[in-house]
Amino acid sequence: MTRTALISSAEEFGTPVYTYDVDAILERLHGLRDLFAGQFDISYAIKANPNMALLRAMRPHLDTFDASSFAEVQRALDAGMAADRISFSGPAKRPEELERSVAVGVGEMVIESLSEAKQLSEIAERAGRVQPCLVRINPLKVPKKFGASMAGAASQFGIDEELIGETLPVIAALPGLRLEGFHIYSGTNCLDADAIAENFSICCSIFNQAVDVTGCRHKRVIFGSGFGIPYLPDETPLDHAQLPGLVLPIVKELLSRPEFAEAKPTLELGRWLVGPFGWLLMRVISCKSSRGKEIRTCDAGFNNHLAACGMMGSVFRRNWVYENLTNPDGDIGPYTLVGPLCTTIDRLAADLEIAEPRVGDILAIPQSGAYGLTSSPTRFISHPEPREVVLQNGQMHDASESLLNHRVEGQR
Amino acid sequence: MTRTALISSAEEFGTPVYTYDVDAILERLHGLRDLFAGQFDISYAIKANPNMALLRAMRPHLDTFDASSFAEVQRALDAGMAADRISFSGPAKRPEELERSVAVGVGEMVIESLSEAKQLSEIAERAGRVQPCLVRINPLKVPKKFGASMAGAASQFGIDEELIGETLPVIAALPGLRLEGFHIYSGTNCLDADAIAENFSICCSIFNQAVDVTGCRHKRVIFGSGFGIPYLPDETPLDHAQLPGLVLPIVKELLSRPEFAEAKPTLELGRWLVGPFGWLLMRVISCKSSRGKEIRTCDAGFNNHLAACGMMGSVFRRNWVYENLTNPDGDIGPYTLVGPLCTTIDRLAADLEIAEPRVGDILAIPQSGAYGLTSSPTRFISHPEPREVVLQNGQMHDASESLLNHRVEGQR
Repeated sequence: MTRTALISSAEEFGTPVYTYDVDAILERLHGLRDLFAGQFDISYAIKANPNMALLRAMRPHLDTFDASSFAEVQRALDAGMAADRISFSGPAKRPEELERSVAVGVGEMVIESLSEAKQLSEIAERAGRVQPCLVRINPLKVPKKFGASMAGAASQFGIDEELIGETLPVIAALPGLRLEGFHIYSGTNCLDADAIAENFSICCSIFNQAVDVTGCRHKRVIFGSGFGIPYLPDETPLDHAQLPGLVLPIVKELLSRPEFAEAKPTLELGRWLVGPFGWLLMRVISCKSSRGKEIRTCDAGFNNHLAACGMMGSVFRRNWVYENLTNPDGDIGPYTLVGPLCTTIDRLAADLEIAEPRVGDILAIPQSGAYGLTSSPTRFISHPEPREVVLQNGQMHDASESLLNHRVEGQR
Repeated sequence: MTRTALISSAEEFGTPVYTYDVDAILERLHGLRDLFAGQFDISYAIKANPNMALLRAMRPHLDTFDASSFAEVQRALDAGMAADRISFSGPAKRPEELERSVAVGVGEMVIESLSEAKQLSEIAERAGRVQPCLVRINPLKVPKKFGASMAGAASQFGIDEELIGETLPVIAALPGLRLEGFHIYSGTNCLDADAIAENFSICCSIFNQAVDVTGCRHKRVIFGSGFGIPYLPDETPLDHAQLPGLVLPIVKELLSRPEFAEAKPTLELGRWLVGPFGWLLMRVISCKSSRGKEIRTCDAGFNNHLAACGMMGSVFRRNWVYENLTNPDGDIGPYTLVGPLCTTIDRLAADLEIAEPRVGDILAIPQSGAYGLTSSPTRFISHPEPREVVLQNGQMHDASESLLNHRVEGQR
């Protein structure tokens, strides 16, 4: 998105504002399909950004949505996705969530534990249904260079790899379930193509072990892709052009096995699809020199972007990339950017090299299309909630679902 | 609050649910006033917990509310507080917030920088008013044993102590402002009475320097108390009974100075008043053994309690105290408690010694009355938002302001 377009978003809709370039997201989506020559189904993990305008725009171009709560299943349905093209994963599905999922006909329930499988089977039986499901497997091994690792250690996610021998036959035999395949999500935000390929190898080896146990023909294998995007100035983007050459042979070999002959390999991803095409735009509210630091207070802080403030699981707080949109040619200097909250932990960036931020300047945090607004504590200190604006078909429009204003999308 | 009362809150209102004992909060408030023999005005910092039922119940027993956004000013007004008994602090007051504050007649604007003072003065002049204000001062020195320190280093908060000589006369001369006193908030959550007393000494020494500069008679000095509460199992509660003997002589000496003869010393506090009288109640949704760990997945995670998950500025994640309300006599063992979110960072407690949590058990996180619901990213993954329940005059009732359900207090 151009600097001019971002500035007009901030000026027209006010700050703070999340702005998403839907046109670019759809281009990325088509590019991904072409990259792998249509060999993968593509599933979007709603949790990355559940904004309805995004879901509606992406829906016709996706094979499935992955939901992580029943409310996300509902969002997928509201966005026009057929129920049988929704998967539902998550380690704490409440009993009523299982019931409603069976009732609406969710396509694939992703089983996270044996106890969940039994509970779901009973619910399906009572409803007179056989519920399709995938079993999530928790690998022992995850390549280095993956971010927050979902595997390798004890985990709430999936069946431990070393337990599939005893567990899968029990699940496969449950009368209310039909075991259609497997799901592995090892880790997130990897920027290294070789590590991603290594992870595909590990997944395929586990899928092979699993089918040795079940002996069934399966319909789907989901690869939690872990495709990453760079957040820090010294990070190099994932060279995704390398991936087909590395990954497709591995998957092809898996599919050559008769039990997987009809299986659709599926790429599940969120961050990589939407992350690069969102910006949080904010204004500088006040300037101060304090004890040798140039401090700029902005109208967005960790209440609006927890991850950018290093509070979403980061061990070390490091500065993200920031842009001064309205004074791009200002003198570069170290500035400390803080948010509007009455707490010292509300720091956006320390000693950041950025063109001088003056009162009223509009600053952007790029790479904010995923895990932005909805993963931030927007109610803290009751500051106005950021609006959400989308650029779609070259037009900018307000796509906020602001709860603070008691508005939902479509009701404006 | 009794275990039985907490269990009925969870059963009647569903989980997750925040439950506040308003009767106990009011008792604490009266106890505090008695402790200091009425020598201090008492101000409640709304940001700690802005729930309207709490504000309405506390309002008749407080001298002032401190707001940190204009929306909090509005809450204080809605709770029935007179505008001239509201102070408004915060490092990023937007121009429209300054205008509205002047318009409604906020009693004391807490000035965080010279540029804010100038802006506010102009706004007041345009409105034909003289706005009362306090200047916040950022001390050079903060005693050890304070939590998240608001001072000592470069800061967005207040005027640096070493700059008051040049800055206060400028502010005092601004035609739209009347400088009524000073405000210091050095740090938060201190459990050591001697350190708190030392901080009062530092504050008084700075107030003395400030009045040396202004030469005026002032009406108020606010001490950000920093009174703490214990979160970790090995922490000892603040021995507040010690405080009057340590603190009152220091304050008495300050008030003996003619410029402070009519000044009201004010204790501003949030956490210590409400923190101990709130519980987050949640249910165990599933049980799993994984690689030697007993994992219990709950229906609340960092989406509902960011601080308990160690994600509110903690450098190290340490387990808070948890209680198993419905199986208190279960075998004690190390359990890992996780939340419902699809991310490994959603961990409540690791290897926690707690009575066995079984599926369906209700667990409590005590000390959750401050910085709980509103400082957590409740929209993440669209799980149901916790309700808020208050115990008041021995009766339990729903005091939720759930945005997800498009309800506000008073509109039910």
